[in-house]
Amino acid sequence: MTAAMTAITAEPTTPAPNTPLAGIIVLDFGQIYQGPYATELMARAGADVIKIEPPSGEPLRRNPAGPGTRLAFAMLNSNKRAITLNLKSERGRALLIEMAGRADVLLENFSPGTMDDLGVGYEVLRAKNPRLVYATGTGFGISGPDRDTLAMDLTIQAASGIMSVTGDPDGPPMKAGPTVVDYMGGIHLYGAVMTALFQRERTGRGQLVEVAMQEAMYSTLASSFEYHLRTGKIPPRTGNRQAGLTTAPYNVFATADGYVAIHVVTEGHWQKLLAAMGREDLKDDPRFATNTARAQNMAATEAVVTAWTSKLPKMEVFAATRRHRIPCAPVRTAPEVMNDPHMHARGMLERFVHPELGEIVLPTTPLRLHGADKVATIASPSIGQHNDKVYGGWLGLSASEIADLRQDGVI
Amino acid sequence: MTAAMTAITAEPTTPAPNTPLAGIIVLDFGQIYQGPYATELMARAGADVIKIEPPSGEPLRRNPAGPGTRLAFAMLNSNKRAITLNLKSERGRALLIEMAGRADVLLENFSPGTMDDLGVGYEVLRAKNPRLVYATGTGFGISGPDRDTLAMDLTIQAASGIMSVTGDPDGPPMKAGPTVVDYMGGIHLYGAVMTALFQRERTGRGQLVEVAMQEAMYSTLASSFEYHLRTGKIPPRTGNRQAGLTTAPYNVFATADGYVAIHVVTEGHWQKLLAAMGREDLKDDPRFATNTARAQNMAATEAVVTAWTSKLPKMEVFAATRRHRIPCAPVRTAPEVMNDPHMHARGMLERFVHPELGEIVLPTTPLRLHGADKVATIASPSIGQHNDKVYGGWLGLSASEIADLRQDGVI
Repeated sequence: MTAAMTAITAEPTTPAPNTPLAGIIVLDFGQIYQGPYATELMARAGADVIKIEPPSGEPLRRNPAGPGTRLAFAMLNSNKRAITLNLKSERGRALLIEMAGRADVLLENFSPGTMDDLGVGYEVLRAKNPRLVYATGTGFGISGPDRDTLAMDLTIQAASGIMSVTGDPDGPPMKAGPTVVDYMGGIHLYGAVMTALFQRERTGRGQLVEVAMQEAMYSTLASSFEYHLRTGKIPPRTGNRQAGLTTAPYNVFATADGYVAIHVVTEGHWQKLLAAMGREDLKDDPRFATNTARAQNMAATEAVVTAWTSKLPKMEVFAATRRHRIPCAPVRTAPEVMNDPHMHARGMLERFVHPELGEIVLPTTPLRLHGADKVATIASPSIGQHNDKVYGGWLGLSASEIADLRQDGVI
Repeated sequence: MTAAMTAITAEPTTPAPNTPLAGIIVLDFGQIYQGPYATELMARAGADVIKIEPPSGEPLRRNPAGPGTRLAFAMLNSNKRAITLNLKSERGRALLIEMAGRADVLLENFSPGTMDDLGVGYEVLRAKNPRLVYATGTGFGISGPDRDTLAMDLTIQAASGIMSVTGDPDGPPMKAGPTVVDYMGGIHLYGAVMTALFQRERTGRGQLVEVAMQEAMYSTLASSFEYHLRTGKIPPRTGNRQAGLTTAPYNVFATADGYVAIHVVTEGHWQKLLAAMGREDLKDDPRFATNTARAQNMAATEAVVTAWTSKLPKMEVFAATRRHRIPCAPVRTAPEVMNDPHMHARGMLERFVHPELGEIVLPTTPLRLHGADKVATIASPSIGQHNDKVYGGWLGLSASEIADLRQDGVI
């Protein structure tokens, strides 16, 4: 237990008055990573996020290692209220339309057309509430020839070109290890919703907004597209070297006990690196005198650096580059990241006692608004935990009506 | 030349009336990728983005392959106006304060403290304009023990744990090939600015907002953090397998002429894959009967799939999986992605004749707002292209005052 540990409350308290999204009600059909990341950031900005799941729960609740809440679920669903709703039931759909009439945002990342096919697509909900912002996150978008191609993080990593430029030059295409596609989709979805909410302030009207994960990834390949335009060639995989092969040193270097990443951006950095390495004798060497020369002599340049790094522990290399103001970082493992003193000191990470998982590390939000109050962390909810509060307190159903809905499998 | 090709106009036309950010003025000190991506999305949403560069231009203008505009620069700076400003000059700083008095947003991704050290930090600008949203994108944030560690995409890939879980199990840590960190930082910055603009509608006040790239990446490692919590072990690199090693098949498979990525999510997908492969004989095989069983027999499961994929061209494998509704995608190269018929059909990508680069492919925006007008593409500006319009037309300086500023190196 640390001083940073936060008390657990059973359910969201009244939103802090000075949060950007205080009073904004979000109907959250997000599942797995993409949708829930967008709505988690809304919850952390003060919105009342109502997570709506089928009575069996969303897929991320299913723990591949056995029953119980998953850490990823806890990370992505803090500060939300959870209700169940069976959209295959006519009364379930009627309840959704009723809720949409009172909400500001509905967000889903189902396959394209799912909500339309159920009879509760955007046009139906807009008729009930023209102020509703309806957000849909998909793999390829809700139009176009590839609309109905199934999409997951892995397959979008293939389709978007990421894999083609990740990995060893001599090896197969490689995915980025983290699920970067899902989260890029999620944060773009957040941006699209906020843009539509802002526009609504002027027009009084909501709208349909969409993000395709494939499109959200496009610009991250800018260096590779540029390489292709310049050379006419297919951009190769470059391992840990820069995608355009135009910068050196830019690589991951082995140390005596691990790895460091070094990226020399300016000529000043190179001169400082020579000083850090005790290799000022090379400062006028024409092979290394400019970035262009170093890129042409990439192997020789890297050999000079490796000769230095390989003899030192990684934290000593890091300390020396830090002292000399050269961009460098030790390669860190996931547990090192979870326990990073810096992110804990900044309040980005918190140690938290979750009712099911025990002590865990939770992120708060990378969107840091200095003029807003911080929202205190509340544990991710169990399935249907807030059915009574939401269907009773908010929608105004009686206890016996709620009991009927439960009995009939509507909620 | 195609029908989709867009005419080039010399400078931004009047914003379309029905865009979310019409009338919003952004002072854009963004450089390289992170900051400019955030402001490019604002320009595509209708904001008047004024790109402010030192008289020598921002770093991304410097083409490592020789003089001339870079494709990445064109991608990230369409639909912006460009002015020059020397912040090391006292008159330059006075001009900035004057502009901040009339702007809605200022965004920069300098090292922490740069603007404060110059005397034009948030507190100074807020005194001039309390409605200003001041956004800063950094590697580690503007507080905390690591604040002043230099940060680039590569080094944050090391520090954030991405590299530790990317690459072959037997190989060194590997970066994600694309510059995912810069763009994750940029889109989070966009989200933070939009949140603050929305809050300003209620409070009438702007605020300081910040995004640290390291923090923007944190949640993408959710699967790895979960693996660590479950096992107590350091999450290994898993190549193209799922980070938690709990799903199979989930991998990249060699075909006769390339690679495909396949991710079997549900038991239904597995049964369909058996049908696609003509291996219904395995449908009751206990080694493959459930995902848990397949994960325990991962090599055997993958061998069954590879025996099928390795004999067919990748597009035939893809066609078969598409027909059977199994998540799969061919691994595509950067040129295939740039010329993707689907994204061109959707209007995400456009063929465009740029005054310096000739015919190129430009992205529009992944934030698709169906209730807003699309902003027509305008070529990225040359250095200081809009000095006269902005300093004259907007700030109201006379032609001779502007000539003096130019002569004195202030702009």
